[in-house]
Amino acid sequence: QENDSLKKPIIPAEKVELLKNINITFDLRMEFQAYTFRGGDNYYNGLQFENGFTALGISAKLHDRLYFNFRNRFNNTSDVQSLDRLGSNIELAYVDLKLSPSFNLLLGKMTAFFGGYEYEFSARDVLEYNDIYGNALAFVTGAGLTYQAFENHKFGLQILNSRTMHYDDLYGDIVAENIQEPDWPVAFVGNWRGSFFDGKLETIYSFSHSYEVRDRGTTFFTIGNKYKNDRLSLMYDFHYSYEEVDTKGIMSRILGEDQIAEDVRYVENWLRAEYRISPKFKGLLTLMTSSTYDNVKTTTEHIRTSYGMIPTIYYSPFKDFDFRFYLAYIGRYYDYSDYALDNFDESSYNKNEVRIGFIAPLWLL
Amino acid sequence: QENDSLKKPIIPAEKVELLKNINITFDLRMEFQAYTFRGGDNYYNGLQFENGFTALGISAKLHDRLYFNFRNRFNNTSDVQSLDRLGSNIELAYVDLKLSPSFNLLLGKMTAFFGGYEYEFSARDVLEYNDIYGNALAFVTGAGLTYQAFENHKFGLQILNSRTMHYDDLYGDIVAENIQEPDWPVAFVGNWRGSFFDGKLETIYSFSHSYEVRDRGTTFFTIGNKYKNDRLSLMYDFHYSYEEVDTKGIMSRILGEDQIAEDVRYVENWLRAEYRISPKFKGLLTLMTSSTYDNVKTTTEHIRTSYGMIPTIYYSPFKDFDFRFYLAYIGRYYDYSDYALDNFDESSYNKNEVRIGFIAPLWLL
Amino acid sequence: QENDSLKKPIIPAEKVELLKNINITFDLRMEFQAYTFRGGDNYYNGLQFENGFTALGISAKLHDRLYFNFRNRFNNTSDVQSLDRLGSNIELAYVDLKLSPSFNLLLGKMTAFFGGYEYEFSARDVLEYNDIYGNALAFVTGAGLTYQAFENHKFGLQILNSRTMHYDDLYGDIVAENIQEPDWPVAFVGNWRGSFFDGKLETIYSFSHSYEVRDRGTTFFTIGNKYKNDRLSLMYDFHYSYEEVDTKGIMSRILGEDQIAEDVRYVENWLRAEYRISPKFKGLLTLMTSSTYDNVKTTTEHIRTSYGMIPTIYYSPFKDFDFRFYLAYIGRYYDYSDYALDNFDESSYNKNEVRIGFIAPLWLL
Repeated sequence: QENDSLKKPIIPAEKVELLKNINITFDLRMEFQAYTFRGGDNYYNGLQFENGFTALGISAKLHDRLYFNFRNRFNNTSDVQSLDRLGSNIELAYVDLKLSPSFNLLLGKMTAFFGGYEYEFSARDVLEYNDIYGNALAFVTGAGLTYQAFENHKFGLQILNSRTMHYDDLYGDIVAENIQEPDWPVAFVGNWRGSFFDGKLETIYSFSHSYEVRDRGTTFFTIGNKYKNDRLSLMYDFHYSYEEVDTKGIMSRILGEDQIAEDVRYVENWLRAEYRISPKFKGLLTLMTSSTYDNVKTTTEHIRTSYGMIPTIYYSPFKDFDFRFYLAYIGRYYDYSDYALDNFDESSYNKNEVRIGFIAPLWLL
Repeated sequence: QENDSLKKPIIPAEKVELLKNINITFDLRMEFQAYTFRGGDNYYNGLQFENGFTALGISAKLHDRLYFNFRNRFNNTSDVQSLDRLGSNIELAYVDLKLSPSFNLLLGKMTAFFGGYEYEFSARDVLEYNDIYGNALAFVTGAGLTYQAFENHKFGLQILNSRTMHYDDLYGDIVAENIQEPDWPVAFVGNWRGSFFDGKLETIYSFSHSYEVRDRGTTFFTIGNKYKNDRLSLMYDFHYSYEEVDTKGIMSRILGEDQIAEDVRYVENWLRAEYRISPKFKGLLTLMTSSTYDNVKTTTEHIRTSYGMIPTIYYSPFKDFDFRFYLAYIGRYYDYSDYALDNFDESSYNKNEVRIGFIAPLWLL
Repeated sequence: QENDSLKKPIIPAEKVELLKNINITFDLRMEFQAYTFRGGDNYYNGLQFENGFTALGISAKLHDRLYFNFRNRFNNTSDVQSLDRLGSNIELAYVDLKLSPSFNLLLGKMTAFFGGYEYEFSARDVLEYNDIYGNALAFVTGAGLTYQAFENHKFGLQILNSRTMHYDDLYGDIVAENIQEPDWPVAFVGNWRGSFFDGKLETIYSFSHSYEVRDRGTTFFTIGNKYKNDRLSLMYDFHYSYEEVDTKGIMSRILGEDQIAEDVRYVENWLRAEYRISPKFKGLLTLMTSSTYDNVKTTTEHIRTSYGMIPTIYYSPFKDFDFRFYLAYIGRYYDYSDYALDNFDESSYNKNEVRIGFIAPLWLL
């Protein structure tokens, strides 16, 4: 019998530890889309298969106090950005150091600590973001500190680059006279994650201020609330962003190609409900509005409001294994104000889309 | 003894299952090339080392009925394509679902179910493709269904995007008046894989029709046959493609830079023989022809025929481990018809090339 | 008890062997930088977070005589290069074959066998390279042979592509009349690694000659020496490069955008000292100079000398685990000669930089 155990293939203890602590994942969302654009000059139909989310993740606990996280999302460009020297495809590349039982330090390219439950979802699980997060820079490089103040309350604070590119590479020759490259394109982000009534009610609130160019920046806050019981979870977010230099690009695109809007405000509501109908079926509904205002320092002109509605059904064929087929309708309505219709080359339009596909968060090792 | 077994490093059962079912591979072909171009205006010599095939593969059986396959080929551009949102480097990213003992459903970016044995080989093992497959789009996004009708007969059916890019991104301003973006650039592909006489004779036949632009498409069929015994395998393919809008680009390149050829036909023969000389040596020979025709709806002009000849020797130094050195000659002859010589700025030419390198399908985990 | 052992999850023996012999690593350097440029027209301040080094490595021993090495550095472009068909992000993709106890053959994309200890460090551990290695092409495709002549003396010889791009793609229309594409842009590299006095003194000397264009090339040699004892290691390199066509680009950039300098010489000194102050602290100092000469075939004009000084402190918080915080000052001084100031649009300038960050060579599996 000793012989037998000697012949057994032995994995070195060191390797066993590594194997236990590494996680390799592959996250997929893939779909068939059928969509129409209508309204004003918009007349476009499209049908196509699309790889909505295709990402390899590697994470590992490498030491009692050191955790590593990496994600390569293949749907984004790998062009190396001039400021932080990674492409948009590398969404995560950071270490998480446990400084003490309640303090953790994060260093590297990471998720900004913005708030709200829309942002809390991975892009794998959001078929269409509202206007702010659809245009926000979510993965940036810097340092973060989290503080588990109480069992149910956690605070986060970050200092981050506010961009991934140098000013010239981002804006090119489009410069206003009063716009200058700052010494440091920096963002400060703080958030609070609360939990009440045994987790039945949860909150993610955040406040951030970032400098995009010299002396001009963006003030952004979010109020995210979640209620859940056995079958239902209900999330409501309010987002408010005041941008001295437009960083979402919605107002800038309305102005036209070679201008950057200034003194813009975006105000949003977002609601998502998820209801477990049966072990295999889940119903979801997302509703959202986003309002754009220009010249907010003087006349505050309302420019447009967009609306969104996304009813969805998930069907999970396998027990104990998360693989979901989904069927969704995505309705988007872009209503321009009279002021905008009079002053810009715009018209109200809408997008109607049906999607059928699958979502698979695969755990490979 | 109990103490001893307690001290042993234990891998969680869950991890053991994952480890058993994951495969990580790295496929390499690397070579030294010496080549000459001669004929007409062609006079060029080159010598260089080249990484012909460099790809990381990850596949896994994640559930009794779910299989995942991914390949990142580093020799291709990672520019994210506008239609399916992956770069050409991501050749495979799909799931394979077993619907029943005989039906499987494939979803994601996958190999089109084209036929013939030339296509059956990975680019790792083909030193030079014939004209059609050298210019075809093999990795596209969509849905496929396979049906194992009998033990020896399997049928496949696919609905796929016929491109990876939107019309504008692919063709830019090169548009004919009668060419329009279709609602859906779709391809339908069907194939049959047969096996006869205990596998001594095998077949892969395919038929496909794809819409490249509105109302105009490509009809492509292949007839692939393979005979094999202990030492010899002999493959013969016939390929026929009628293209209302040229998708291979051979005729378009002859017309000149800002035109897309229409009503083109490509007809090909391809033969490959592999003979195991000894456990360490194998001899191979590939022969091929490809004929291009223009104006096939009216006058049917023969434009050119290309010929190819690729004698190759494999030397496998290791027993029970697939690592091959290879030595090959690649001869390619492009003969233009009198019609083409008279009407276009072309002349017949040839390429002579010698390659020495290695092929390594490495199994890493 | 038999039941017990049957229930135990079993990993196939084959998989155990693979697992034992694979290594997956992730190397990170990430930092906060504060820097100023001053002198002449240079007046620039910057503060930013940066991902200095972000690379996934996979290596494996796949057979008694076959080793595989791959590294994807995400900070470099993935644009596929025309000559060797890999992007700059793929730094390593080669196999290492043991031909005999003393001879190894390397094939693929690999590190050129240049010498000196500056080059011996990974870019992870070098905050700023001197002028030659800061602009040299270190990862190229070809074949290498190493010969362990004696226990303490190893010789290496390589034949490599001297570029990763074809001439046209690299130089575009910038061509001098006497410059032509060579049949083979080839580099020959040889080096010697010696060890003396029980490893207390070590050497890496190299000599290389490469052809950049037809009949014109670069002759480069390095003399690298290292002394080390328990606490101190001291390295000194001398580098000399004579370039008939400028491949480092320093002199070409001084000439202006559409010219390539010819008959250039770069001469460098580099010194690095590392002193282990305590188990947790290490002090480092790098000093370097680099001189540029133009017209070295005729008048030999001294153009500029650059100086560098990089005092650094490492702090390793974890015992038995290599994770280092670092704090460094990087001073760089570029002094132009009177000849250069008179003849070119240049002025002397300097860069002062402070960096704080971490270096983590993470072993994942």
